[in-house]
Amino acid sequence: MSSAPRTQARLAAELIGTAALLATVVGSGIMADQLAGGNVAVALLANTLATAFMLYVLISTLGPVSGAHFNPVVSVMAFKDGALSAGLLAGFVAMQVAGGVLGVWLAHAMFELPVLQLGVKPRTGLGQWIAEATATAGLILTIRLFVRFKPAQVAAGVACYIGAAYWFTASTSFANPAVTIARSLTPTFAGIAPADAPGFILAQCAGALVGYALASTVMAEKQ
Amino acid sequence: MSSAPRTQARLAAELIGTAALLATVVGSGIMADQLAGGNVAVALLANTLATAFMLYVLISTLGPVSGAHFNPVVSVMAFKDGALSAGLLAGFVAMQVAGGVLGVWLAHAMFELPVLQLGVKPRTGLGQWIAEATATAGLILTIRLFVRFKPAQVAAGVACYIGAAYWFTASTSFANPAVTIARSLTPTFAGIAPADAPGFILAQCAGALVGYALASTVMAEKQ
Amino acid sequence: MSSAPRTQARLAAELIGTAALLATVVGSGIMADQLAGGNVAVALLANTLATAFMLYVLISTLGPVSGAHFNPVVSVMAFKDGALSAGLLAGFVAMQVAGGVLGVWLAHAMFELPVLQLGVKPRTGLGQWIAEATATAGLILTIRLFVRFKPAQVAAGVACYIGAAYWFTASTSFANPAVTIARSLTPTFAGIAPADAPGFILAQCAGALVGYALASTVMAEKQ
Amino acid sequence: MSSAPRTQARLAAELIGTAALLATVVGSGIMADQLAGGNVAVALLANTLATAFMLYVLISTLGPVSGAHFNPVVSVMAFKDGALSAGLLAGFVAMQVAGGVLGVWLAHAMFELPVLQLGVKPRTGLGQWIAEATATAGLILTIRLFVRFKPAQVAAGVACYIGAAYWFTASTSFANPAVTIARSLTPTFAGIAPADAPGFILAQCAGALVGYALASTVMAEKQ
Repeated sequence: MSSAPRTQARLAAELIGTAALLATVVGSGIMADQLAGGNVAVALLANTLATAFMLYVLISTLGPVSGAHFNPVVSVMAFKDGALSAGLLAGFVAMQVAGGVLGVWLAHAMFELPVLQLGVKPRTGLGQWIAEATATAGLILTIRLFVRFKPAQVAAGVACYIGAAYWFTASTSFANPAVTIARSLTPTFAGIAPADAPGFILAQCAGALVGYALASTVMAEKQ
Repeated sequence: MSSAPRTQARLAAELIGTAALLATVVGSGIMADQLAGGNVAVALLANTLATAFMLYVLISTLGPVSGAHFNPVVSVMAFKDGALSAGLLAGFVAMQVAGGVLGVWLAHAMFELPVLQLGVKPRTGLGQWIAEATATAGLILTIRLFVRFKPAQVAAGVACYIGAAYWFTASTSFANPAVTIARSLTPTFAGIAPADAPGFILAQCAGALVGYALASTVMAEKQ
Repeated sequence: MSSAPRTQARLAAELIGTAALLATVVGSGIMADQLAGGNVAVALLANTLATAFMLYVLISTLGPVSGAHFNPVVSVMAFKDGALSAGLLAGFVAMQVAGGVLGVWLAHAMFELPVLQLGVKPRTGLGQWIAEATATAGLILTIRLFVRFKPAQVAAGVACYIGAAYWFTASTSFANPAVTIARSLTPTFAGIAPADAPGFILAQCAGALVGYALASTVMAEKQ
Repeated sequence: MSSAPRTQARLAAELIGTAALLATVVGSGIMADQLAGGNVAVALLANTLATAFMLYVLISTLGPVSGAHFNPVVSVMAFKDGALSAGLLAGFVAMQVAGGVLGVWLAHAMFELPVLQLGVKPRTGLGQWIAEATATAGLILTIRLFVRFKPAQVAAGVACYIGAAYWFTASTSFANPAVTIARSLTPTFAGIAPADAPGFILAQCAGALVGYALASTVMAEKQ
């Protein structure tokens, strides 16, 4: 490519991508919950597959435009690494939060639920916070190492990581402050009570620092 | 390749590919429904996997021949972009509709059901139409961006997109007028009542325009 | 590679590969059936995933050695195309049948079932035969077109095709005479009554001819 | 890359990777067991997907650093092939065992279970031992042949192999002494009674030798 994407295109990519991600997470949660007849494991399996498939699509197609962050923690890391200006960082985070909310509302509209709602599912306690820190540490490790060693496979890598993390973390791996805010606006399968969102976001930030440091250790080379 | 596929080969590819796609969608729906003992989520999981797997196969193998459209909306887009003449557009759409119908009939024959039937499942209402428009917008976005940025992965991309869209859209994502017509000819798991098909097709056309415009925005480059 | 695999290595690859394939099909069928508590759709989902995963592994690793046929119909096609001598064809088919039987026996041994048994599940009738012909036609189409257009993805392509065919064909897609013979030696989930095996094999041979011809049509190029 | 990873980075990679693998195997086992309502097949499906997804991530990202063994049997094979010194072999095995244990404890912490526990699930008998030998033979075959013929796909190959082996072996395929030790420290879904661990490890070592020899046969070339 001879020319870089425009700023407007980059912001649009973060908005559209995060909206599509949340429409998928919340929409597939509603569908799965409605069809699974109380078998929560089957519902989470469907939710997992839909999310992993969509992440592969979104990161493959929007990565070349905006980097396909869809996650303030990832954008802050890009800012820290000099890949994003302070102004763009603010714009990216705004688009991620706005996109996430729009995605949840789109899911509600498709399933003919009231659009404006709040989360109700309690997700709190030490186990949940360790889980969110672990999930985010793993996500940052995954992204940094794929970008360093296997850049062409980063979309498949993140999709598989999140697919695994839905199951191995006790919190089903939100690992993303914008996603956490958006999911606090739905009482459906994938929701979280708004009062529990700050604890998740704090744990995610702590986990991101751990993941960043672990990746640096692993990538250290012989002098 | 030193020589292009013949017109006849391209038409055959659209016929065979759409037939195989519909045989898979409808056939796996029948099988899943028969085996799932009323657990619709499990049935839809099987239906999803079979469809995604087959899309990967069909787009990989027939893409080099005809472009592997299997979808009038995609062929119209190719015509608009100058990649298909008006005559071939008509031929492609005819093959897609004929192939879809043949695929449904083949599925009925394999499962020893009466071949000629009509759909009965009602699929209508605002939520369903928003879902079909969303599904088709996402499909066009996915195709245009993969073709632009990751052409070698377009088969995996479309397979994953449809795999996700089976779950996150309230309509299980038909996103294709030929598929909609064909599925109006089966009363089984994947069917649709014929009276509801026109609403789906209109929503698909509207969604395709939105998806086309969104893709243009995202692909815009710095002057 | 500067030197070709030895004949002995090629025969070993067909023996080991077909044994591993059958151990997977039959073993995962037993495991799934034991764990699924009567939910046959869940059992078949597990059976499907295990088979598709293993096919990807076996074709990737043994393809460079023997071509990874594991299927007399595929070996006959290779003979017809001049890629296999008559002597090697006989050797390949012998290894495929022997390997398949050994794989079934290994599965029985792992699950502590009597090693020597016969199939009991009736699989017969017009629908089943149409299904086997369709399954085999699709398999030959898949192989010929991947080899022609996407040779590096043939392992993923065949794995996905069979994964889809487990569901969209009424017979769960044996599509392989050696597999049919081997599966007539187990009364478990994946078995077939020996009396029904010849009908399956005949349908497979007919389907292979159809698939071969369809692939030739699709691959025809402009003169 | 102009410089090799430091020894410390390689040891860190084995520690972190094995910890992540065990956190995934055990954590997803707990989650799946809690949600599946007694449907063990659904629980094992979730366990399988999470493990396969994570193996793809870990081998892709840590392979370039340490080789991504996570398994003493694989490290011994690397030592035998001259790719690892005796000192590094000892370090790798120590990191694998320590990492595995840390991963189990992390899973317990996330799910708010007592951290220090012992396995209780009996896994013993001839069928189980044949299964573990088969699973490990297949793993070594898979690794050696992918490294030889398809090195860029080794992560996907091992992930798919283990995904299949969870189902086709009667033991759900531990195939790894460090994993066996770690899983003897949890009474949850993926656990094993400590008394049964030595039998598994012996069978794994025997199977590794068989797999190594089979791979040599298959890779033999014409002189």
